[in-house]
Amino acid sequence: MFSLTVRDHMMIAHSFNGDIFGPAQGLHGATYVVDVTFERHELDENDLIVDIGLASDVLKDVLSEFNMKNLDDLPEFHGRNTTTEFMAKVVFDRMADAIHTGRLGAEGKGIAGIKVTLGESHLAWASYHAGI
Amino acid sequence: MFSLTVRDHMMIAHSFNGDIFGPAQGLHGATYVVDVTFERHELDENDLIVDIGLASDVLKDVLSEFNMKNLDDLPEFHGRNTTTEFMAKVVFDRMADAIHTGRLGAEGKGIAGIKVTLGESHLAWASYHAGI
Amino acid sequence: MFSLTVRDHMMIAHSFNGDIFGPAQGLHGATYVVDVTFERHELDENDLIVDIGLASDVLKDVLSEFNMKNLDDLPEFHGRNTTTEFMAKVVFDRMADAIHTGRLGAEGKGIAGIKVTLGESHLAWASYHAGI
Amino acid sequence: MFSLTVRDHMMIAHSFNGDIFGPAQGLHGATYVVDVTFERHELDENDLIVDIGLASDVLKDVLSEFNMKNLDDLPEFHGRNTTTEFMAKVVFDRMADAIHTGRLGAEGKGIAGIKVTLGESHLAWASYHAGI
Amino acid sequence: MFSLTVRDHMMIAHSFNGDIFGPAQGLHGATYVVDVTFERHELDENDLIVDIGLASDVLKDVLSEFNMKNLDDLPEFHGRNTTTEFMAKVVFDRMADAIHTGRLGAEGKGIAGIKVTLGESHLAWASYHAGI
Amino acid sequence: MFSLTVRDHMMIAHSFNGDIFGPAQGLHGATYVVDVTFERHELDENDLIVDIGLASDVLKDVLSEFNMKNLDDLPEFHGRNTTTEFMAKVVFDRMADAIHTGRLGAEGKGIAGIKVTLGESHLAWASYHAGI
Repeated sequence: MFSLTVRDHMMIAHSFNGDIFGPAQGLHGATYVVDVTFERHELDENDLIVDIGLASDVLKDVLSEFNMKNLDDLPEFHGRNTTTEFMAKVVFDRMADAIHTGRLGAEGKGIAGIKVTLGESHLAWASYHAGI
Repeated sequence: MFSLTVRDHMMIAHSFNGDIFGPAQGLHGATYVVDVTFERHELDENDLIVDIGLASDVLKDVLSEFNMKNLDDLPEFHGRNTTTEFMAKVVFDRMADAIHTGRLGAEGKGIAGIKVTLGESHLAWASYHAGI
Repeated sequence: MFSLTVRDHMMIAHSFNGDIFGPAQGLHGATYVVDVTFERHELDENDLIVDIGLASDVLKDVLSEFNMKNLDDLPEFHGRNTTTEFMAKVVFDRMADAIHTGRLGAEGKGIAGIKVTLGESHLAWASYHAGI
Repeated sequence: MFSLTVRDHMMIAHSFNGDIFGPAQGLHGATYVVDVTFERHELDENDLIVDIGLASDVLKDVLSEFNMKNLDDLPEFHGRNTTTEFMAKVVFDRMADAIHTGRLGAEGKGIAGIKVTLGESHLAWASYHAGI
Repeated sequence: MFSLTVRDHMMIAHSFNGDIFGPAQGLHGATYVVDVTFERHELDENDLIVDIGLASDVLKDVLSEFNMKNLDDLPEFHGRNTTTEFMAKVVFDRMADAIHTGRLGAEGKGIAGIKVTLGESHLAWASYHAGI
Repeated sequence: MFSLTVRDHMMIAHSFNGDIFGPAQGLHGATYVVDVTFERHELDENDLIVDIGLASDVLKDVLSEFNMKNLDDLPEFHGRNTTTEFMAKVVFDRMADAIHTGRLGAEGKGIAGIKVTLGESHLAWASYHAGI
């Protein structure tokens, strides 16, 4: 399997609900360093997995929905905890949708799977990985 | 698949047996930067893979058995070489046992697999990865 | 000159005032990876710059004042922008005070200077560095 | 599954063919930080996945074929684009061949799979991963 | 002293003249990860060292002169070796000029010094650091 | 000021004397990732700070004196604690001596200062920096 990863980041505020979160129940924030890995069984006719410039642009566009925001303000997330692992799945879903709607080009439809990793610090990170 | 990784480290002394180890047959040491990845098919009711604070505490407790020790002194390892890959499996076994005995909480029992990676330098690292 | 650095982190929310900040005028957040460097002309009688365990504990205590908080709620910062460079100076001042009041031990008073670096992402970081 | 990774690098020039590459159609270059991961179901009698010194030597030898070269000059690559993902597969094939011909020793034949990752910058990297 | 660093990169081809360079006398290439540090004695009225967005844009513009190029083709460098340390000074000079001509804004003129670091691999990097 | 840094590492065992060291009084070990920075006011006639290949070779040679050893066995260190900061100075002294005796070539004598940093983990590192 071939894979290609591009990196970007977003800086968000949020709070969590539930005793298990302790002090993280208060409003705080995070820088998420976001790595998106595109998987493909064979390279395309240009010897590429995906156009890296296009992939980076689509990722930046996806993250702009959350970057510099308070996630508590987004109706989509009401009733959920926007943990690192939860947000990895959110970015995964946005990227998968971008592929299905052709935003990564005709060749982008050859992508077999995606892995999204969000690093919250030098000590912890979370991923969501699945076929698409 | 969702996954969450936490990082800690341990500093140990040891020596190896066998000509293949060359100068590493003498007593020397290593800092192992230890990454433990917890895998889970679905998030729990708090939108978590595992309580990250609890996971970090259990990892620190597991590593305290080896940290600041000479591994050659531990009877459990007599007759074995405590290579990076060998120790990755040792930490894996300890973490899997912690899950099975409930030290990561009731929700921790939803964990489907673990990967343990020990970084011995900027040039080499080793892992053990399996379902539990 | 000898120097020793210890690393920790804090996760905060905040917002900025001023057109220059663009979208960062809204409430957002950051993980700051915090490196504190202690400088000393000569090692102490134990061949140390500072007791690394004590230095780490004091740093964690200093950061606990901000970690998991919305900096906009702290009266001390009213009328200021809690930029990365501003917060580097805030942590510097807290650490310098800890040294002066003996929280790093009698030997800690031999420290000649401190540098505090806050990493806000893989692309940007800021420092404050001065003698004490 | 056990795995062991060793890191080295190569510095190459090349150019690409195809409008999709934009300015990368001109002659430019890259440092590829190369990570080779060896996978094995069980450790050998020395508690090793592979002799790490031998693996590092073989990797350096494989990379010497490309390091400090203009890849456009190598007949093997005529008509192909030597993208990061393409070169990951090239290094994979060389390493797999080294194992099959015994250059990683008799025990090296126990290796079940390899993953080769080429990092082209702090923002992008590509891999090829397969059984051997 | 306050300092703020921003990171970008460029991918170039080049060759060197002189026996000391060995195989690097042939055409090869490098990814340079470029860190530019801006130093300032006091923060400006916005609590900033420099507008980080503007600094990143100016850096990208400076690097675009070299990115995806063969440095051997640039008349400015004829008769010189475009080593990592040499290119650090070149980027320094471009950034200093950008400050002097006001491209970092009126406040940018408060910058007291710059350090430019070019990372050529995980094993080597070079800097040029001076007042401006 | 120009500077060039090269990285290598060593893996050692040791123990410390003094209550302040707590569990580190027992025999344990460390991987030290060693960065040596060479400083020079002007580049030499080849546009170099120092021959990077030669500098790497000399560093490896210096570290071979300690790598894969128990530092407690070396008479030179009797009565001292081989802390990270202490060992940074030891490596500094060896590198300075290598320059003075011409092992970095005639041009190496133009080096004005050295900084040696030893990283003991992802959380702590120590340096010694001085003119030579």
